[in-house]
Amino acid sequence: MRIAELSARSGTSIPTIKYYLREGLLPAGTATGRNQADYGEEHVRRLRLVRALIDVGGVPIATVREVLAAVDQTDLPPHDLLGVAHCLVPAATRRDHDDPGWRAARAEVDAIVAERGWWVHERAPARDAAADAIAALRALGQDDLLENLPVWTDAAERVAQAEVAKVVARGEPAAMVEGVVTGTVLGEAVLNALRRLAQEAASARLLGATPG
Amino acid sequence: MRIAELSARSGTSIPTIKYYLREGLLPAGTATGRNQADYGEEHVRRLRLVRALIDVGGVPIATVREVLAAVDQTDLPPHDLLGVAHCLVPAATRRDHDDPGWRAARAEVDAIVAERGWWVHERAPARDAAADAIAALRALGQDDLLENLPVWTDAAERVAQAEVAKVVARGEPAAMVEGVVTGTVLGEAVLNALRRLAQEAASARLLGATPG
Repeated sequence: MRIAELSARSGTSIPTIKYYLREGLLPAGTATGRNQADYGEEHVRRLRLVRALIDVGGVPIATVREVLAAVDQTDLPPHDLLGVAHCLVPAATRRDHDDPGWRAARAEVDAIVAERGWWVHERAPARDAAADAIAALRALGQDDLLENLPVWTDAAERVAQAEVAKVVARGEPAAMVEGVVTGTVLGEAVLNALRRLAQEAASARLLGATPG
Repeated sequence: MRIAELSARSGTSIPTIKYYLREGLLPAGTATGRNQADYGEEHVRRLRLVRALIDVGGVPIATVREVLAAVDQTDLPPHDLLGVAHCLVPAATRRDHDDPGWRAARAEVDAIVAERGWWVHERAPARDAAADAIAALRALGQDDLLENLPVWTDAAERVAQAEVAKVVARGEPAAMVEGVVTGTVLGEAVLNALRRLAQEAASARLLGATPG
């Protein structure tokens, strides 16, 4: 198909498609003339993935590029496929890792991982990300909220088991990688939005408000 | 205290403090001379909250300003305090709300809310945010991942009940608002990071990998 049809099929403007081509987020089409190229179904599919990551997931362009490189490398061992998803963890914040408060929070995270018997890489970025947020809550004196750590951990465990089971059931490596990437980013967006809705509902119930 | 001490106490550079003062994220100190002002404990506390929202929560400056305005308005009825947290939902994506796929996803969200008996405002931004992510997953053909919607909803409900209970137990309006704001943003960061760790662990178990 021509670029105009690719644009219509993917709901992406031609200038945006050209930008993605220049940025290496979309492979070039097959040249059919001086200034023309032919695009296939794989371009429609890739464009939808790129848009989902950028628009819904809020993933930066540079990270999308790294993720796509991993998606295209389907000869990884199955467990390493999931490592791709870790590229998507938001960039580490600039918290001072020598700060005793941060080190205590990181030790708390490591203790949770050990207690649950989770096999997690020592340098998984999510360990630092969890420590960042826990340290910030403690620094703000919100210790009572952190009493919910076991509730959060239970929820994370249940959700993750169901999610990984679905991805693994696909069997085919390329489909598994796409499941990890979209499930991590978009699944997180669904879960976070549902959590906010449930918070509003819990507040209405606990405080006896009527729906507004 | 002088600005230099405020800087040391809050771990924030003087130029950044001056930027926050100009942007209205931090109230002015008490003038003590031509170019000097005195700052108090409330400035240390406010600076920590601003840094947590921006650095850990990734909340944009303009949104932080709106949130702080609501935090300072503690005469709201208790349930409306939680409404403050909704300011923090990431800006709605530019998905086409006339698209039949999006409308179907939004109907799915409304059905979940009704089924659970949740009292949630018809125009809560989180309804649209959930619909955005669900529509994106369906458009990408990831329907199998969406079979986990009940698992996500259960997790969201359990987590939200525990979170709101902690905040309500505080009783004091200003402390409740701070709990909603920090709990929504930083609690989400903790939950999302724990979910990624649990995913890695579930993958290792299901795929029989050894920890790397």
